Amino acid sequence: MTTAELLRLAASAKPGAAALAAERKNCLLHFMADALLAQSGRILAANAADMAAARGVIAPVMLDRLALTHQRIEAMANGLRAVAALPDPIGQTLEETQRPNGLLLRKVRVPMGVIATIYESRPNVTADAAALCLKSGNVCVLRGGKDAIRSNTAIVDALHAGLERGGAPRGLVNLVQDTDRGSSVELMEARGLVDLLIPRGGKGLIRACMENAKVPCIETGTGICHIYVDAAADMKKALSIVDNAKTSRPSVCNAAEVCLVHKAAAEEFLPLLAERLAKKKVELRLCPRAAALIPGKPAMPQDFDTEFLDYILAIKVVDSVDEAVRHIAAHSTGHSEAIVTEDKAAADRFCGAVDSAAVYVNASTRFTDGGEFGLGCEMGISTQKLGARGPMGLVELTSYKYIIQGDGQIR
Amino acid sequence: MTTAELLRLAASAKPGAAALAAERKNCLLHFMADALLAQSGRILAANAADMAAARGVIAPVMLDRLALTHQRIEAMANGLRAVAALPDPIGQTLEETQRPNGLLLRKVRVPMGVIATIYESRPNVTADAAALCLKSGNVCVLRGGKDAIRSNTAIVDALHAGLERGGAPRGLVNLVQDTDRGSSVELMEARGLVDLLIPRGGKGLIRACMENAKVPCIETGTGICHIYVDAAADMKKALSIVDNAKTSRPSVCNAAEVCLVHKAAAEEFLPLLAERLAKKKVELRLCPRAAALIPGKPAMPQDFDTEFLDYILAIKVVDSVDEAVRHIAAHSTGHSEAIVTEDKAAADRFCGAVDSAAVYVNASTRFTDGGEFGLGCEMGISTQKLGARGPMGLVELTSYKYIIQGDGQIR
Repeated sequence: MTTAELLRLAASAKPGAAALAAERKNCLLHFMADALLAQSGRILAANAADMAAARGVIAPVMLDRLALTHQRIEAMANGLRAVAALPDPIGQTLEETQRPNGLLLRKVRVPMGVIATIYESRPNVTADAAALCLKSGNVCVLRGGKDAIRSNTAIVDALHAGLERGGAPRGLVNLVQDTDRGSSVELMEARGLVDLLIPRGGKGLIRACMENAKVPCIETGTGICHIYVDAAADMKKALSIVDNAKTSRPSVCNAAEVCLVHKAAAEEFLPLLAERLAKKKVELRLCPRAAALIPGKPAMPQDFDTEFLDYILAIKVVDSVDEAVRHIAAHSTGHSEAIVTEDKAAADRFCGAVDSAAVYVNASTRFTDGGEFGLGCEMGISTQKLGARGPMGLVELTSYKYIIQGDGQIR
Repeated sequence: MTTAELLRLAASAKPGAAALAAERKNCLLHFMADALLAQSGRILAANAADMAAARGVIAPVMLDRLALTHQRIEAMANGLRAVAALPDPIGQTLEETQRPNGLLLRKVRVPMGVIATIYESRPNVTADAAALCLKSGNVCVLRGGKDAIRSNTAIVDALHAGLERGGAPRGLVNLVQDTDRGSSVELMEARGLVDLLIPRGGKGLIRACMENAKVPCIETGTGICHIYVDAAADMKKALSIVDNAKTSRPSVCNAAEVCLVHKAAAEEFLPLLAERLAKKKVELRLCPRAAALIPGKPAMPQDFDTEFLDYILAIKVVDSVDEAVRHIAAHSTGHSEAIVTEDKAAADRFCGAVDSAAVYVNASTRFTDGGEFGLGCEMGISTQKLGARGPMGLVELTSYKYIIQGDGQIR
């Protein structure tokens, strides 16, 4: 099927998806999970073919993301069942008001319609995204990476088998077969057919979508996250938070890339931090004032604008919480920032002034995650302010409409 | 000032705008209203110069939109005071949850940041948009039409005088001086400087923004609105609703363009409708089945995809509520649709299945409006599903962020 045909099929499946009752959706999700397990042999064989083709072509870390095992397929199936267990967001009345003229206005939660997502090598995103879209009443159009096309096709075949067992149309879950760049552009330009486009992947992909999309699009994921260690910081908390935010999983978007330290804390804190991070082989890139206190490389200006996604931390000494706020405003991607302080006024100032999706007091930025926020799941983390902001769970994949009951009112 | 300089100035005013207390904003709005009245002589002189330059260049209907009078300036000032009287949306806690690890999550309403709006000839939009953005904690960048530049400049001078009287920076309200197409493109491409772009105007402008914007953008306004007269319609209600939706103000986006009539109602309803609309000189464009019952022009296919904004109504006879729903799905712009029926099942079916911002039962589509919905004001009507949908008041110009209080939590 061409991408254009697939998009028309997806659009035609919208009314059916929106009308599915909660129990029906949950039942379909369990059938899809069953089918993933039942077809795990075929999925693993397809994945082996993808891996064979990709070996030597893509980086080892990407190969690891591409690889499926029986355990990973079980995790996918469990993911589908976990989504089934979440509350249904659709149909909820958000507001109800009666106007003086007697009109009764109800603001009701509805699906977006067709959600297209462009992602890279991890095939588990295929099952995750399909489940989240189905549960939120949406039709999905999945456009995975070239490297994973055999795995994704086998996974979607299994999901279709689950849908068919439940008597639902395959058009609820759609995989773009063409993995050339042209198919991404088709999704970005599908005005009237795609209600929301969510890119998930590297900076280049997200930038291409934001710059070229003619359909509504959510910017996700890039995280230049900051930890500001205030003059009134508890040193023990500060050390463990910076260590955790930097080293617990450096490759993810909620990992910290920059540590700002108040000048009054720097002399005590920085040597302790240098010692602690040396054990994890973290490379430090230092502003001149930090470099006067601890060993490390001098920071270049671009080090404060880089998502390292690696064991590298840029460190800058600042004069005040306000300087920290200004630095963050100038360099952050609006994902997650934290202040470590025992001073409530400093914390309030920081939380009020920092314009990022998640602002922490005395906690690691690594908590910016749908699961950790109690959403039960996640379709990505929005770093823009139109539509969802921060982790996107089911509710964040919905819109609303007004249903107005009258009795012949005219204006 | 160049548009690039203006955008940087606007971005630098963001923290100040977000931090303004409600009473301060209300005071500034009253000062701005006072200044509009105090400077009405200069504003009228500037408008006279705009009118003189535009006469013979733009259509009479556009000239009327451009024209200011003392009464219209008073209406603008009253509009500012009305916005001052509305509740402040900023800072409200939308949700609060404590996670099992002790983290306290608060979801708090915050401004978008910099809202840019591109609009056409009506200079009153300048004051309206400035007031709505200020009250919602946003900085505005206003890009009005070439025809109104002198009027807009005089209005913004007055608004600045009001800000200065209140000790607030002029950078809270910014008018783009350059009215060439290039300045619109600069706003559309101002990634990192414009948080939301709202085009207000004709189809061409909105389409250009949706297709070219690299910043988050809300599609507004175009309304191909439908009234479906069901088999179980009350004829009297149906007549008055169709009449009102078509003729009370044909040039606005919530006016009806298409009437769908159930075959069982057509024979009784259409002659009554034709008689009623003949009095208002409404031209009817009829499907073959309607043409067999009443006089009118035969409808061409494009008549069901046209926002006439005029005394023209396309009429089509359908076999069922489902056919009406399918027709609307294929031809509507997602703005407003209505069903006229006394049959609750038909109404529920229609409201559930029609995917538009506002869906009415037994009321005119003309009510889709911020004031009529009780929002107190309006920045436009969104026809997309990402972000605000339907009339955009103050709340619809905001986003949210998460503030997370911890006590040293790491992951």
